[in-house]
Amino acid sequence: MPTRRTVFFVSDRTGITAEMLGASLLTQFEDFSFQRVTIPFVDSPERVGEALRQVNETAEREGKRPIVISSIVDEAMSAQIRREANALTLDFFQFFIQPLEGELGAKSSHAAGRSHGIADSHVYFARMEAINFTQAHDDGATTRDLAKAQVILVGVSRCGKTPTSLYLALQFGIRAANFPLTPDDFTDRKLPASVQPFRDKLFGLTIQPERLREIREERRPNSKYATLDNCRYEVREAEAMMTRERIPMLDTTTKSIEEIATTILHRGKLERRIF
Amino acid sequence: MPTRRTVFFVSDRTGITAEMLGASLLTQFEDFSFQRVTIPFVDSPERVGEALRQVNETAEREGKRPIVISSIVDEAMSAQIRREANALTLDFFQFFIQPLEGELGAKSSHAAGRSHGIADSHVYFARMEAINFTQAHDDGATTRDLAKAQVILVGVSRCGKTPTSLYLALQFGIRAANFPLTPDDFTDRKLPASVQPFRDKLFGLTIQPERLREIREERRPNSKYATLDNCRYEVREAEAMMTRERIPMLDTTTKSIEEIATTILHRGKLERRIF
Repeated sequence: MPTRRTVFFVSDRTGITAEMLGASLLTQFEDFSFQRVTIPFVDSPERVGEALRQVNETAEREGKRPIVISSIVDEAMSAQIRREANALTLDFFQFFIQPLEGELGAKSSHAAGRSHGIADSHVYFARMEAINFTQAHDDGATTRDLAKAQVILVGVSRCGKTPTSLYLALQFGIRAANFPLTPDDFTDRKLPASVQPFRDKLFGLTIQPERLREIREERRPNSKYATLDNCRYEVREAEAMMTRERIPMLDTTTKSIEEIATTILHRGKLERRIF
Repeated sequence: MPTRRTVFFVSDRTGITAEMLGASLLTQFEDFSFQRVTIPFVDSPERVGEALRQVNETAEREGKRPIVISSIVDEAMSAQIRREANALTLDFFQFFIQPLEGELGAKSSHAAGRSHGIADSHVYFARMEAINFTQAHDDGATTRDLAKAQVILVGVSRCGKTPTSLYLALQFGIRAANFPLTPDDFTDRKLPASVQPFRDKLFGLTIQPERLREIREERRPNSKYATLDNCRYEVREAEAMMTRERIPMLDTTTKSIEEIATTILHRGKLERRIF
């Protein structure tokens, strides 16, 4: 049985950064099973008190002190948590801000976390525009304004085009269209006519037929669409087409949405519009 | 003029965690203008060499050493970057892993970052299912299976429902439907019939009319839809309806998508399915 430990992500804002940081640290300890709890918006003495109560009650109940990964800009609140929590408390803010102050020769403003802020209206509109564009151009829904796409993903149904496009838009502000490759295209041995003018924007996703079968079976159980034979046929034809047309190609089988999206950004040298 | 400094995010995986960590640290230094460069997939001696070249060329060109915020699990590679980069290098992995090892009484596996991995097939399918559900239930597109929604966002057109729903699905694996409140609903002074059975799942978004006007004007310039008068009317009626119906309500005007999504999770006590 893996040892259980409770981990709290405590933040004065959303806690998303602390969660992601924690996720990458905790995967390094495979023999443990971590119970994760996020406490966001800890930005007042009352909220600090509540967070401390929750952490300390857990310590008492479990007989083992929890781990607290925190991101609190306010020095006094952060210090109080580190002092009063019956836990191993790691605050990334407190770790990093001092060396940065030294390097920049400037004091930090110590204003509560402003990442993900929308202060910059230009960035906000770019992000919204990317999301609208990507939604409108999902699964070949429209071919209007395809020239405005920064990337057009192609691949067989259920190889990961939609989630990747949405992630590119939300996380990086990229206008990402996606277009299915279907048995009709394979019979014609031609790219869909509407994407042909934009060949330099095409990026192919592929997937192992066994995995595709599993995903399609989940979606349409016992269909011809989901059979291994059909998945094999479609993947083989799609890969042949991408090779023939010299479209860059990525196998998504063992990759997360984040990894697929980052690889496309990186290989395509796409300019992201938000950070 | 703000002082310009270049910041590199160097990671053995996607670099997304390093970017987010960096973003929240850098906003603390308002008098600087940071040029940001992400170098992902630094997971081999060759890629370490390339990253070092890029960092050191920048140092030379700019006459100021860059800042490197990194996340490299492999100790030798991380040490090489800290040693050979002409930069302030902060590796969060190296900062945090040792205290964690001490606390857990276990060595970390030091396998290259596995966050965002898809090892867990159950989590993968939950995420995909949430994305499919949310896409299908955008803007009231279908009322089928609304009972399966974990949350149903309501509000006037362009108040932030779509990006928030997508973020809830992608980042947290939440099945989030959204439903517009329109002038017809205000005339009837009734919630749309299809959401009435699910009142306990409703969460209202609202927005300041001036901001709404700006967003709608960007989308449909010079339309009646975008006039300040119309925005004022719709917002007033929508807020009155939410108050009357006791639907929890959040003003999105100065909030990022991340903040809106996290607030909904937190207030709605929703169980997220991925981390």
